[in-house]
Parts: sequence; structure tokens; C-alpha cells
Amino acid sequence: MSKFRTIWTTEDRFVEVIDQRKLPHEWVVVKLETYEDAELAIKEMTVRGAPLIGATAAYGIYLAVREMIEEELDPSFVDEAFSALRASRPTAVNLFWALDKMQKALDESTDFLTTAWDMAGQIVEEDIETCRMIGVHGLPIIEEISNRKKGETVNILTHCNAGMLGCIEWGTITSPIYQAVQKGIKVHVWVDETRPRNQGSNLTCYELTRHGVDHTLIVDNTGGHLMQHGQVDMVIVGTDRTTRSGDVANKIGTYLKALAAKDNQVPFYVALPSTTLDMTIRDGLTEIPIEERNQDEVRYSTGKAQSTGKIESVLICPETTKAANYGFDVTPARLVSKLITERGICDASEEGILELFPEYR
Amino acid sequence: MSKFRTIWTTEDRFVEVIDQRKLPHEWVVVKLETYEDAELAIKEMTVRGAPLIGATAAYGIYLAVREMIEEELDPSFVDEAFSALRASRPTAVNLFWALDKMQKALDESTDFLTTAWDMAGQIVEEDIETCRMIGVHGLPIIEEISNRKKGETVNILTHCNAGMLGCIEWGTITSPIYQAVQKGIKVHVWVDETRPRNQGSNLTCYELTRHGVDHTLIVDNTGGHLMQHGQVDMVIVGTDRTTRSGDVANKIGTYLKALAAKDNQVPFYVALPSTTLDMTIRDGLTEIPIEERNQDEVRYSTGKAQSTGKIESVLICPETTKAANYGFDVTPARLVSKLITERGICDASEEGILELFPEYR
Repeated sequence: MSKFRTIWTTEDRFVEVIDQRKLPHEWVVVKLETYEDAELAIKEMTVRGAPLIGATAAYGIYLAVREMIEEELDPSFVDEAFSALRASRPTAVNLFWALDKMQKALDESTDFLTTAWDMAGQIVEEDIETCRMIGVHGLPIIEEISNRKKGETVNILTHCNAGMLGCIEWGTITSPIYQAVQKGIKVHVWVDETRPRNQGSNLTCYELTRHGVDHTLIVDNTGGHLMQHGQVDMVIVGTDRTTRSGDVANKIGTYLKALAAKDNQVPFYVALPSTTLDMTIRDGLTEIPIEERNQDEVRYSTGKAQSTGKIESVLICPETTKAANYGFDVTPARLVSKLITERGICDASEEGILELFPEYR
Repeated sequence: MSKFRTIWTTEDRFVEVIDQRKLPHEWVVVKLETYEDAELAIKEMTVRGAPLIGATAAYGIYLAVREMIEEELDPSFVDEAFSALRASRPTAVNLFWALDKMQKALDESTDFLTTAWDMAGQIVEEDIETCRMIGVHGLPIIEEISNRKKGETVNILTHCNAGMLGCIEWGTITSPIYQAVQKGIKVHVWVDETRPRNQGSNLTCYELTRHGVDHTLIVDNTGGHLMQHGQVDMVIVGTDRTTRSGDVANKIGTYLKALAAKDNQVPFYVALPSTTLDMTIRDGLTEIPIEERNQDEVRYSTGKAQSTGKIESVLICPETTKAANYGFDVTPARLVSKLITERGICDASEEGILELFPEYR
């Protein structure tokens, strides 16, 4: 499909990304020339979304290797880059997966620069293919609902942005949606705003607009009401980390939508590249670290000011009020209808996951 | 208790209210001199909260009667005022209750002006006493949790503003909280931001700050996560209308918190003056009309601009993205632990309500 990618290389062999904090109002491209640039891009959420974080970290290692060679630095410089990038975000497991993959490739290589460049590129291409396949497997779910509704619009609710902007192309949850739209199936997406950072209203609405997909923005409070009134045919969300038992860490608030889906017999799907599987842990609630972010993300809301047209942050509480800002929550496997992966669809359970991924047996 | 009231009369016998849309950043008093002023104040949410809407409508009728007499208008002028005020908001039943009370009093009176003035004043005083009694009955619930926790802080989560700002004094959900704090019980309140209009961050945080109650602002997505991790001892919310069977209409998103409370065995209380009971209907989901408001409340967020210090609205989605804005949702009685009323505590069921309010048998 896509009209654009979220990360790309330049002629002088550096890396560029979109500053996603400025979307949908401004299209700003940021050049990453050092691993610190990549680290900062992840930390400050210039880039976000588990697969894109992984790809950015991989290129961060490439940039460190390049700097080491060009500046004749000690190899420990690259070790520092690994440590720094590993610490840039805590929840998304793709970050660690991508860094492990880079580490292994470098360990087995003598031509570090070529290896790092090629492996980062490979991680990007693999993500694109993985997302495409998630769409191939997810599409029949939408098709079936459309058939059941005799071609009437299929209403899909999503939370946060697990779209192409969080990946490279296609996205995870958007891949079946884009493929359904390409096939002529009538689809409408309810987009959760996703406070505090508004990835839904800023990013999901943006990419659905660019791809011509009918959608309606709602506040995070609304999904339950819509489900009670039969206005949601399915929920589909992404994940930053899925445990061996099928527990799913995703953007804060996902759990509430899963509860509402269960209460109203609305199927609740999680779309994931297998790189977000963390087969080393079982209990998502106790074992997945949940990032706590700056309280000002909650105390302020950011957008394009009505009076000036400039991007502005507005304080939405008394000056002295403090806030808590948990980035993710965990949806227990019992609330997840199915996992949609690049290898197919499975139950959110150890048995289900192992059927598709027997290498973890 | 209170440091201020939300509606009061002036020496020249008009009415003043706080423009709650400007809180917490600015304290602006609005004088209501005609029933149209009162109607607009309700419609545009200068005032909000079921009891305060009722009180404002009651004074709106007084203002209509006054204008009729002073301008020697036809009595149909007051009928028009009744119709206009009745149509000013659809969900809160107190509005209709207050207007019915005014109508009845006027029907039985010959001195319309005195009757309207007195009855509006009585509605205000009754609300204050009602709210105080909700606190008297709710306080032991907080006390018991405090005792069970051996004096450790009691963590209370609330959604929207069912505080004194939505009433006249005390508030509904804040009445037990203020009374607990006065008694020296350690209380901490998790305040849901409550998008799209941010009554939590704007109003609840404001009044808790003014009354020195420890609180933390969270986005609407966070409550489930906190409950999963034992950080919420009880949830307490208000209601705009409660049916005969105990279904509760309240600010959009309340239902999601009730689901999370149930899933984590956290007690879920609804505090209500009996004026919000609607004993004429049973099924909240099909019988309570849910207000749909302007989509720009969702597309924009409003607060104090960081760069200018002025109140500003910022667009949080692409220019072309449309939004849906449902004001309320219905929490089924099965998810409500208890109702806290001015007459005591009861089950959220017809039997429970009738035990306290046998006049509806």
C-alpha cells in the first residue's frame, strides 16, 4: 500500500523519521545522525509504537557503529549505545528484540558497518512483511462481519495508534482495515482519543484521513456506551508486550475497553507481530513493568490553538494539582477473543500461541 | 462547611452564578436577570450538575414571573419560560423535578412573585441539607475502610464533578469526603479528568484544592489499572438520573469504571439526592435519553495556554475529522454496590429504593 514510510535512510546513509509529536498539524522530518539522536527520538516520543521503536533502536546501533569507525572510538562506545537504547523505553519488548538481533549480528560479523546497516534494513523490511501478513489473516474477520451484516458498514473501535505510524508500513491493527477497504468492504472506525498523549486523535485519525478511511473521533469514555448500543462490531488494538499466557500490555485504557467488549459480547482482537511476544513471562499484571511518564502530559493537553494556529499546550487543572501518568495497562488473556499474528490467528493462551509458534515449546 | 456557594441572590433580587466554564483558571461571576439568562446558563454549561441545574431553572422561573409582572406581560410568558427551561438539557431529571415544583407552587398561589422567590430559595436550601445528609450517611463507609486499613489513607476514585460545584454546597460525592476530612480521616482522591469537558480536572480538582483535600489527577483511561493494582479502595460517582430498578445515568465513562470496579472487587457507590430518582422508568439503557453535544467539545481541548496564560482551545485532530459526543452513559444496577441518599444507604434495586422511599410504592 502505503503513501509513505515512518523511517527511511538518506543518500548520505543517515536516517530520517517523522516527528510524530507534531502530527496531525505539522509534517516535520527529523534526521538522526548519532545513536543519541535515536535514543532521544525514542525517549521523547518523536517516534513511538513498538515496531517503530525497535527499528529506530536498530538504526541507532548502526549510527553508533558508524561513529565508532569514523571517529576511531573504542568499541565500548557501541556497548554504551546498546545500554542507552535499551533504557530508552521500558514496556515495548520489540525494543529489546531489535537490539538483541543487532547484537547477535555484530557478534558474528567482522564488517560491523555493513552488518549493522543491513540488519537494521532487514528489521524494517521484516516489519513491513509482518504487518502485511497480519492484515492477510485479519481481513477475513472483517469480511465475515460484513457478510453477516449483508454488506452494511462494519464498525471497528480502536484505542491508541497501532497503525502504520507505529510501525513502518501497513501497521498492525490498520493492516486488516486497509486491506478490507482496498477490497471494497465498508468500514468505519471509532477512534479513541487516547489521553494523555492523544495518539488516537493525533495519529490514528491522521493516517485514516490520509488513507481515506471513514472514521469518527470519540473520547476514551465513550466506547462502553457505543458497545451497549450495538454500535461496535469489533474492537482491535495493538500491544507493546504479550506474555506466554496471552496477557496483553497496551496503551493505558485498553483494559477498560476489553471489559466493555466482554460485557457486551463484542469480539476483542489484539493484532501483534510476534516480536511483541515475551515468552519469558506469564503473568502480565505482575511481570510487565509499566512506564510512568511525566505528570505534565496529564496536566496539559496539546493541539493547534484556535486563536493563533500554532501548536500550544493548555493547562487543564489548577496549577498546584499533581497528576499520575501510567503509560500502559495489562488486559488479562481471559478478556481477549483472539490474537492476530503474522502466522495466523490463535487463542490468547499459551497453547494457542505455541500452536503458531512451536519454536517456543 | 462551605467556603462559597454556587448560586446566590443579590440585593436587587437577581441571581448570580459562577461561570464554571472558566474554572479553575478564572473566577467569573455571571448575573442572571431574565429567564433567558438562566436558560443560556444551563444550555451553555455556565452552570452544570443535576442539582445546580434544577436550582438555576427554579430561579429562571422566578425571573420570568418578575419580568411578567414588571413588564405587565401576558401570563403565557411564564409558560414559555417553563417550556424553554424544560428543553435546556435533556438528561438530568432534577431539572424537571424543580420545574414541576415551581409549577405546582405557582398553581396554588395568588402572590406569584413571592411564591416563586420563596420556592426557588427553598429548593436551594433543601439541596444543601440533602447533600449534607448524603455525607452523614456516606461517612461511615469511608470510616470503615479507614479502620480496616488501620488509619492508612483511603483512596477514593471519582469521575466528573458531583461535588459542591454541581450542587449548592457540600456536593453529593464530596459530602462524605469533606466530612471524613473534617473528622481527621486520611483521604486521597483519584480524579478522572473526564473528557471531553474536563469537569474532573477543571472542577473537582479545583474544589478539592480549595478545601485542602489531597488528590491526584488521572486521565480517564487510568482507573482500571489502579484498581488492578489495589490502589483504589472505593469508587463514588454522582448521577443525573436513577431509574426505579437502580440503573444509573451519569457522565459518559462512568460505566467503564463500574466494570473495572466489579472486575477488581472494588465497591462502587452512587451518591444521589432523591430528586435524581426517576421512578417512572425501569430500564436505563433504553429509557433514559442520552444527550448528544457539539462535536467540537471532542475535537478541541480547553485550558490555560502555556505561552500566553490565556484560556485557549486547541484542536487535537485533523481539521476534517468528525467526532461523536455522547454526554452520558448508563451503568446497569448490577454493577452498583449501593446507592447513598439523603435518607440512608440502599441496594441499587427497586426493593432497595422503595425501602427508603416507600412513598413510591
